[in-house]
Amino acid sequence: MIKSENIKVCVFDAYGTLFDINSAVNKHIEKLGENSEAVSSIWRQKQLEYSWLRSLMCQYTDFWKVTQEALDYALNSCGIENNKLRGELLDAYMHLDCYPEVEEVLKDLKEKGIVTAILSNGSPEMLKAAISSAKLTDYIDVVLCVDDIKVYKPDPKVYKLVTDKFNISKEEVLFHSSNSWDVAGASSFGFQVAWINRLDKQKETLPFKPDMEAKSLNEVSKVFK
Amino acid sequence: MIKSENIKVCVFDAYGTLFDINSAVNKHIEKLGENSEAVSSIWRQKQLEYSWLRSLMCQYTDFWKVTQEALDYALNSCGIENNKLRGELLDAYMHLDCYPEVEEVLKDLKEKGIVTAILSNGSPEMLKAAISSAKLTDYIDVVLCVDDIKVYKPDPKVYKLVTDKFNISKEEVLFHSSNSWDVAGASSFGFQVAWINRLDKQKETLPFKPDMEAKSLNEVSKVFK
Repeated sequence: MIKSENIKVCVFDAYGTLFDINSAVNKHIEKLGENSEAVSSIWRQKQLEYSWLRSLMCQYTDFWKVTQEALDYALNSCGIENNKLRGELLDAYMHLDCYPEVEEVLKDLKEKGIVTAILSNGSPEMLKAAISSAKLTDYIDVVLCVDDIKVYKPDPKVYKLVTDKFNISKEEVLFHSSNSWDVAGASSFGFQVAWINRLDKQKETLPFKPDMEAKSLNEVSKVFK
Repeated sequence: MIKSENIKVCVFDAYGTLFDINSAVNKHIEKLGENSEAVSSIWRQKQLEYSWLRSLMCQYTDFWKVTQEALDYALNSCGIENNKLRGELLDAYMHLDCYPEVEEVLKDLKEKGIVTAILSNGSPEMLKAAISSAKLTDYIDVVLCVDDIKVYKPDPKVYKLVTDKFNISKEEVLFHSSNSWDVAGASSFGFQVAWINRLDKQKETLPFKPDMEAKSLNEVSKVFK
């Protein structure tokens, strides 16, 4: 259960939560044909895996480079050698669609006087481009990214960027993520956490649980009404 | 290229490299039926993922607990609720088969005066049981595990257990692993590394490469002849 009366800042993960990561591949589905689904899912899986492994290895490189390395793995796994298409997919990732309810939810929170922020693995350039092309600039107060601390989620140093920035306690943050591992990290850190389980994914068997599970951001914003 | 004249210690990853992780599920293939392959691959994938996530979250728990959490996820994903079978699978994981060439390779290295060691995420109890049931006790000089430092591979602190234990330089270690992410971690740390690519898996697109790729441990041990 979310204790909404305590919440001062609503923080959103970016990729998969605000922005539809499958929309990059969907824009080029005709060129990818039967490989579309595999490219999209392997690209994402490797992007996460490489971000975790590089954090653990103390070999941070920014998320744009991680995204490129992961796409190369995905294209290799489907036997696709096509530099032009590679460039187009990366460009599409730079300008992802956001999910349909996002603008309305952010606007609503702003009207209620709640501060909004993004906390993402994305590089500053990636986040700037995504926010701008999804026309969300007016609804996001603060963008926090990992580039200054050179480590990825779910390292607690990442979640601490929020409490340091706003000088608030962990319980005063409502963190939203579609990514179950990010939910575990934020819950382990001590945030109140909503799991936006858009695709009805299986629950993790880790002991760090969300305070709420919802199908879309709409359901969460209702706790403030 | 391996510089074999420099090697003082041959270090082996355990799970997937010496011990056949699929052998746990294979012992119960009749009970698992068409779910066998999915249970084995999801079990392994989640075991790795949870070890990485727990390291990053600073939420270490030993590998036996991680292995149980991962198995629960895998069984849930196949809709299997069967506590007896769960117990049997865990018991089988405690007593995995080793790959056919392992004993001969270790014996050969020992005869050549090369020190042999295991460096594994496994808990002390798991490693003791696996080494004993695979009858490898006489051929392994040292077993190093992460339980003292409470973090998993590929954190460089894990690989440093080897150089600290033997008081040797990184280049004097030949590290063997079947796991491409472990190969990346060991290479990034500075070991000489052999990737035992038993299942002809796809190359990672990370910049940390093995010095040698082989189908089995036999091929690597030949560099000492």
